[in-house]
Amino acid sequence: MNFASDNIVGASAQVLQAIVQSNGGALPAYGNDEITKRVKAQFSAIFERDVSVFLVTTGTAANALALASAVPPWGLCICHQEAHVIDDECGAPEFFMHGAKLVGLPGVGGKLTAGTVSAYVRGLPKAVKQMPPKALSISQVTECGMVYGLDEIAALSQTCREHGLFLHMDGARFANALVSLGCTPAEMTWKQGVDILSFGGTKNGCLMAEAIVVFNPALAEALDYRAKRAGQIISKGRLIAAQFEGYFADDHWYANARHANRMATLLSEGLAAVPGVRLAWPTEANEVFPIVPKLVDQAFKAAGLQYLGWTEASLAEDERVGSDEALIRLVVSFATAEEEVRQLVDIARSAVSRQAAE
Amino acid sequence: MNFASDNIVGASAQVLQAIVQSNGGALPAYGNDEITKRVKAQFSAIFERDVSVFLVTTGTAANALALASAVPPWGLCICHQEAHVIDDECGAPEFFMHGAKLVGLPGVGGKLTAGTVSAYVRGLPKAVKQMPPKALSISQVTECGMVYGLDEIAALSQTCREHGLFLHMDGARFANALVSLGCTPAEMTWKQGVDILSFGGTKNGCLMAEAIVVFNPALAEALDYRAKRAGQIISKGRLIAAQFEGYFADDHWYANARHANRMATLLSEGLAAVPGVRLAWPTEANEVFPIVPKLVDQAFKAAGLQYLGWTEASLAEDERVGSDEALIRLVVSFATAEEEVRQLVDIARSAVSRQAAE
Amino acid sequence: MNFASDNIVGASAQVLQAIVQSNGGALPAYGNDEITKRVKAQFSAIFERDVSVFLVTTGTAANALALASAVPPWGLCICHQEAHVIDDECGAPEFFMHGAKLVGLPGVGGKLTAGTVSAYVRGLPKAVKQMPPKALSISQVTECGMVYGLDEIAALSQTCREHGLFLHMDGARFANALVSLGCTPAEMTWKQGVDILSFGGTKNGCLMAEAIVVFNPALAEALDYRAKRAGQIISKGRLIAAQFEGYFADDHWYANARHANRMATLLSEGLAAVPGVRLAWPTEANEVFPIVPKLVDQAFKAAGLQYLGWTEASLAEDERVGSDEALIRLVVSFATAEEEVRQLVDIARSAVSRQAAE
Amino acid sequence: MNFASDNIVGASAQVLQAIVQSNGGALPAYGNDEITKRVKAQFSAIFERDVSVFLVTTGTAANALALASAVPPWGLCICHQEAHVIDDECGAPEFFMHGAKLVGLPGVGGKLTAGTVSAYVRGLPKAVKQMPPKALSISQVTECGMVYGLDEIAALSQTCREHGLFLHMDGARFANALVSLGCTPAEMTWKQGVDILSFGGTKNGCLMAEAIVVFNPALAEALDYRAKRAGQIISKGRLIAAQFEGYFADDHWYANARHANRMATLLSEGLAAVPGVRLAWPTEANEVFPIVPKLVDQAFKAAGLQYLGWTEASLAEDERVGSDEALIRLVVSFATAEEEVRQLVDIARSAVSRQAAE
Repeated sequence: MNFASDNIVGASAQVLQAIVQSNGGALPAYGNDEITKRVKAQFSAIFERDVSVFLVTTGTAANALALASAVPPWGLCICHQEAHVIDDECGAPEFFMHGAKLVGLPGVGGKLTAGTVSAYVRGLPKAVKQMPPKALSISQVTECGMVYGLDEIAALSQTCREHGLFLHMDGARFANALVSLGCTPAEMTWKQGVDILSFGGTKNGCLMAEAIVVFNPALAEALDYRAKRAGQIISKGRLIAAQFEGYFADDHWYANARHANRMATLLSEGLAAVPGVRLAWPTEANEVFPIVPKLVDQAFKAAGLQYLGWTEASLAEDERVGSDEALIRLVVSFATAEEEVRQLVDIARSAVSRQAAE
Repeated sequence: MNFASDNIVGASAQVLQAIVQSNGGALPAYGNDEITKRVKAQFSAIFERDVSVFLVTTGTAANALALASAVPPWGLCICHQEAHVIDDECGAPEFFMHGAKLVGLPGVGGKLTAGTVSAYVRGLPKAVKQMPPKALSISQVTECGMVYGLDEIAALSQTCREHGLFLHMDGARFANALVSLGCTPAEMTWKQGVDILSFGGTKNGCLMAEAIVVFNPALAEALDYRAKRAGQIISKGRLIAAQFEGYFADDHWYANARHANRMATLLSEGLAAVPGVRLAWPTEANEVFPIVPKLVDQAFKAAGLQYLGWTEASLAEDERVGSDEALIRLVVSFATAEEEVRQLVDIARSAVSRQAAE
Repeated sequence: MNFASDNIVGASAQVLQAIVQSNGGALPAYGNDEITKRVKAQFSAIFERDVSVFLVTTGTAANALALASAVPPWGLCICHQEAHVIDDECGAPEFFMHGAKLVGLPGVGGKLTAGTVSAYVRGLPKAVKQMPPKALSISQVTECGMVYGLDEIAALSQTCREHGLFLHMDGARFANALVSLGCTPAEMTWKQGVDILSFGGTKNGCLMAEAIVVFNPALAEALDYRAKRAGQIISKGRLIAAQFEGYFADDHWYANARHANRMATLLSEGLAAVPGVRLAWPTEANEVFPIVPKLVDQAFKAAGLQYLGWTEASLAEDERVGSDEALIRLVVSFATAEEEVRQLVDIARSAVSRQAAE
Repeated sequence: MNFASDNIVGASAQVLQAIVQSNGGALPAYGNDEITKRVKAQFSAIFERDVSVFLVTTGTAANALALASAVPPWGLCICHQEAHVIDDECGAPEFFMHGAKLVGLPGVGGKLTAGTVSAYVRGLPKAVKQMPPKALSISQVTECGMVYGLDEIAALSQTCREHGLFLHMDGARFANALVSLGCTPAEMTWKQGVDILSFGGTKNGCLMAEAIVVFNPALAEALDYRAKRAGQIISKGRLIAAQFEGYFADDHWYANARHANRMATLLSEGLAAVPGVRLAWPTEANEVFPIVPKLVDQAFKAAGLQYLGWTEASLAEDERVGSDEALIRLVVSFATAEEEVRQLVDIARSAVSRQAAE
């Protein structure tokens, strides 16, 4: 059983089928094909307004291109101190932004508050030696599995407007956040003031399909040039476009995300019921972050489970991971079977029972 | 009928099948899966020595990453003046090389000679104001459809050694060149002194599969970091790896390239037999560059054919395209049917005959 | 005698005196001092309108910063193929522009025509693979010692407007051009549509004083940040500002340039009167480019003269340098004595006479 | 009275005289002159070994070029969290390093310990997503006015060797540190394992003279190209070289630094004797960081003193600045008169006495 991430399985059957079906016949290269055009129109329909869409191959590329469109080389981009863009992309944003700087601020559960951002910006020296802040990037779902509420996004957006920042949303798990909030894509983005979005498909059923969705037209102007010179416009563009067609058809993406989130809830509730286990942060999407007794961690490993340990840096102030505990991350996806979740909980429960019995 | 390029069709059946077959089950992300490991070993087998291999999503990314590993930000990279890297990639190499400069030199048929390169390097001022040359990039097949002979590559490589340049080969049509020369991959590359290779799969049967193959270990050191920060390490790495497995199996790639080259020969011979048609450059791989009477060009367009006009900049010195002629590019691929070739030749022949009859 | 360049002598007495006088007392650092403020106001007075001024240390920095403010990383900057920015700055513009590309076009005497620029831009493919042209950079005085007429600048500017390009003027020898045309600084720049200017002081009497003068406010917005992060805002800013004060006082800069141009005219006329000597391009500022018999070249060298050979690439189409001739560059400055000019001409005359006598 | 920084006065008389004396005559441009050659030899003499020296115009440029030579674009550079390179240079290092990242670590008094650096490096994930650490930059004198002991530098250098990092020293106040330790330049640098040094002259008597001194030959290879393309090779190179000649002559630089440090000691002792005043960090060079009652801060301001407030982030763990206190920075230089110091202390003493009397 593998709970390491939601990118360890291939495509869903429906997406794979879409790839296969799009394969035949001659089509213009470099995204000038009909499938790509259809999919771009579909994005506008999904977001209930005209949006500019750029199909790319990785979430890292989507984030780095989006940030580069918002932040000049001498600018600052604010993000959470554990954000994927600052921690997990080998400096891709700095490369694409030509040396602009990411600044990581703290926040419980991977969330930034408007107050934190505002205080930081206000505290910056007003001098040419100080790179000026130009964008805020938030992760929805956060790196700790939490979901910003619409009001929280609106507050951050308001702060951005006050200080002249663009607002970027890293939506690697966009669909999981969406079904968690039960709102529309429009409500979770531009209606709250998001300027530009990394829209992830890969973790929720695609094989390799990411998109940059631009709500603020100023940020779309040069993105095609930027994507081209980043080697991100694949020649047989149908490959990505077809995946999105399969992804969107019959609300497949919603169904996938709902399943994943439901598995997470199940897992979360199951584990929380095990004595000695508690949650580092509430389970709001498809990731569960339990703090478990070390013997549970050992039992998981003994059973061959795949998953990651996690940092406690974003715990609430009065929370700590004890010396006999471990904070771990368990990720489920559209492909996770309920049976796997049950087995995992069983392993935890058994481990604790065994110890109690000793 | 579409002769615009060899990237207008999807994958070959065998490659598509490989994608489908690799889809099931959980695998480590980011290229740490078994399929990727197998394919990397296969590259070493194919090249008859240990090579470092980096799987990427586009030829532009392969070229730009390869050049960035060879050329420091203050260096020059020499190439043909019509090379894809200088003309068709929106400055991707300059972006990845952090402002290093590409210099285009002339040469008949898209080929550079050792003499041209050597004279250029010798003529550069020895001063700090002059960016020092650090690499030579050649296209095999060239942008005019010609193929460097082994002795020509060896001579260029010798020039590179003399002047301290790395030698890069843009092998977007590597397989087509290979079957054209009838040599081994090793013979066409490192045995002649090539340091680093962009190995293309997409144009010859894959859907999206490119690789950087490194023969000179010094150039491989940081390529994984460079690829990661360029957003070129896809999370479900099996997608590219599986394509290469399908591509290599049963010498599928050779068969595809042989078919394409044979179609080109057929097309080339057919057109050359039409009165008033001549070849701009010999047909050595899967591209044909005829100089046709304008009425043939018009007949092609009237028939709905897709293809590109081409520049005459790399014609031999005494060749010119007349005012009533057009130089065009016709590209065939693994997917081109003999019947299409015949029809195309027929259109040309008919157009000329009709005119003769008038 | 040294005719190698106009940067081989120190400062004029008046400029040196200004440095010395500004040395005492405490002043705010980083250009926030009174002298810098006064000098910036003086620039506005000289150009008869509000201008933004940035004081920097080298012409290379002035050019590279100016171009970086006009050209995005994915853009093209057009210039003459022998322009200082493309040939003599070790890729500084490419570094500051983050990989944007310089394209060199041909033109007699180092001058570009509106027709050449327009034809080039019109011929570019309209495709994302093609970096879009964003700026034109012209050198006034050109690298061949010629001076654009006001109508020529206006025509280039008109072409720029048509194609959405910014117009940059590299005025390393701004004062020499100005006194050559006998117009005002305003007439030679913004009144003809120049957007941004590299204003050189070093070659005409300063020790190290260059300025970027911005007429188009959009280009000034981030220049202070760009200059800071380029290490171009010196801490004791008075050093550059004081030089400009000395330079401008009592029209010292005009006097210096007039002297240099007069020396060039004298030299030019003297040499042209020597049998077998002719001018590659008319002498319009402070540089003379004679084509001399090789024996004259040898006589110069034997006499220990310092100067450079020059390329014939920008000769008029029907001009050639014979195999027994040499094209050389002789530069005079505010510090050149008439006696030096006379001696140089004498050496040429004697060499030719001696040969005639043999 | 101005205690804002040590860059608010012009040059010392001796340095100014050197500028004036070097002004006459023709000399090769771009640092190929005799004065520059002599000065470079002098650096080798001062450091008791062959060193490569690059003369530049600002400390920011020196730091950014030095770091760029040590850190590849995908690398990390570790520094103190208040280091000038991370806080005060508008991203110059990130620009010159092409997007490499600076990471700031904490440490009392602006100092890093070998333990802190080592723990940080050991804690980094071993994965391609993690930019690898490549250099450590320390400031000698630190941003809090402290001086690393030779054993501390040696320990940091040892840590660097263990982890494959280059060691850079930002010596903007190199001379002040030197006379503080009473050691030789060699002992404070390469003998402890420093690879590359930013050697400041401007703050200690020069007008604009900074040098990069390279001990590790590998880091010198491309620095001339890097400096040229950064617009840092001034054409009349004598300007900087002459200043260093004047600076070094008769141990002028030692005398200047000794005076400044003595003034700092005087100031420090004077203030510490005032009731209610204490030192944030020991005074080890030419900067004093007192924590003063707010009424003293107000008295200083009322008297028209120029100085900066400072952050308490690098206080020892049990130290805090009270709500009725202010932490300020007072900088003295070669030009500070003892009388100024006395007056400043008097103002503090009087303010406190007045209050006690009330």
